[in-house]
Amino acid sequence: MTAQEKLKNRIKQNYHICVGLDSDLEKIPNHLKSNNNPILDFNKSIIDATAEHSAAYKLNFAFYEKLGKEGWETLYETIKYIPKDILIIADAKRGDIGNTSYKYAQAVFEELECDSITLHPYMGYESVEPFLNYKDKISFILALTSNPSAADFEKQVLSNGKYFYQEVISKINDWNIEDNCGLVFGATNTKELIENTNSFNDMPVLLPGIGVQGGSLEEVVKCFMEAGKDKFIINVSRGILYIDQTEKYLESVTQKIIDYNFKIKEISN
Amino acid sequence: MTAQEKLKNRIKQNYHICVGLDSDLEKIPNHLKSNNNPILDFNKSIIDATAEHSAAYKLNFAFYEKLGKEGWETLYETIKYIPKDILIIADAKRGDIGNTSYKYAQAVFEELECDSITLHPYMGYESVEPFLNYKDKISFILALTSNPSAADFEKQVLSNGKYFYQEVISKINDWNIEDNCGLVFGATNTKELIENTNSFNDMPVLLPGIGVQGGSLEEVVKCFMEAGKDKFIINVSRGILYIDQTEKYLESVTQKIIDYNFKIKEISN
Repeated sequence: MTAQEKLKNRIKQNYHICVGLDSDLEKIPNHLKSNNNPILDFNKSIIDATAEHSAAYKLNFAFYEKLGKEGWETLYETIKYIPKDILIIADAKRGDIGNTSYKYAQAVFEELECDSITLHPYMGYESVEPFLNYKDKISFILALTSNPSAADFEKQVLSNGKYFYQEVISKINDWNIEDNCGLVFGATNTKELIENTNSFNDMPVLLPGIGVQGGSLEEVVKCFMEAGKDKFIINVSRGILYIDQTEKYLESVTQKIIDYNFKIKEISN
Repeated sequence: MTAQEKLKNRIKQNYHICVGLDSDLEKIPNHLKSNNNPILDFNKSIIDATAEHSAAYKLNFAFYEKLGKEGWETLYETIKYIPKDILIIADAKRGDIGNTSYKYAQAVFEELECDSITLHPYMGYESVEPFLNYKDKISFILALTSNPSAADFEKQVLSNGKYFYQEVISKINDWNIEDNCGLVFGATNTKELIENTNSFNDMPVLLPGIGVQGGSLEEVVKCFMEAGKDKFIINVSRGILYIDQTEKYLESVTQKIIDYNFKIKEISN
């Protein structure tokens, strides 16, 4: 099943929540911490508790790289555990010259068998091309990010009057020949989201920034609904993973994603 | 020894070549390929052959990530093997929101014990800050890269008349409070290099793009000499690693880096 099909099927069922597996030993429930591989056990339990209700899983590579060789093993085993019909996003934010990006693409799409990746646009087309050569995968490229210092560069104004991130979106549209480009757009930028939804065309949009970072689920969903678009997935990490520290955490986790889905459906109608 | 001291000591000896360990199983000498860990053996041999003459080692993470868990092990063992007085650059091109960049910094500076890293500036200050909190390390941030599609975004003109990459260099100067910022500037951009050397101030500059990519060693060295600056390191990867496929490849490798150093000294005088 292609990445595009996986995403489409889930969105058709009104699932728009991407579960961000930013799994952190310091934050998982205490009773798991003495397990042999607590992060892997935690991930598997979260996947079990959310797979019926999620649009995608996003693995934040930093949280695994920090753990060295075992982190890599955990990443690998977690990916293997995710049901084959759900989109797996490698949140690795890669981007390098062509021959290097080619190796990163092999690492993420072949060695780790992810469906999708997040990329930095800074170095331009060649840095993205080796990923786009995988037609059945989706490359989510950073447009406007959710952090306050997105203003440092992404919101710089160009001599043609456009914001820098708008130039990025425009070029990504040009690159989307095989229907395998996506955008990362921070949910904290509601105003910009409303102003730019048209320029997304048919590309899927990954929106981080809901919850701890301050983005509003309601406003994001409303924005896409009003634009008549449904190809959006909202990432929630800390707002799902760590809401309950008791042994019954999985009940809370399942309830939480069901609540999110209910809220989204409610706003959509 | 701090990253700054390591670099300074080597530059004082007129060593400006950074050996880029972009080690690729397909390209190393045939007689090594049946070894238990051919890439690690190759790396160790290259380090032995160049350590006396190099300014730094740069590990291109893509080449190791592509190999999965064993790649990580090779990365780790290679880093451990590099003499402690030589700068180790993690060419990982990371950059993410604060709490994620913090994990990447831990991965590279603590878990892998590298002295230095390459970073994407796109997401602004917060994405770089967790790396800059390590005062004894050097963060080389992408300014103008060596690939042709650097023109896509890096060379866009801003409403203030500056090129985008110049705005990036300007902000990196602001961030360099602890003297731990560096720049990545592609050696293929000779014209821009000459025009912008002043704006580098006292920051060290890592220059990829010599050799296969078409950059000229002579012009780079001349440019820095004329500006009265010596804090530059020129990366050479394919131009050192794969110049000889015979069993005597190490003699060629040593001779090659000596030749580079001789050439640089000649131009400097």
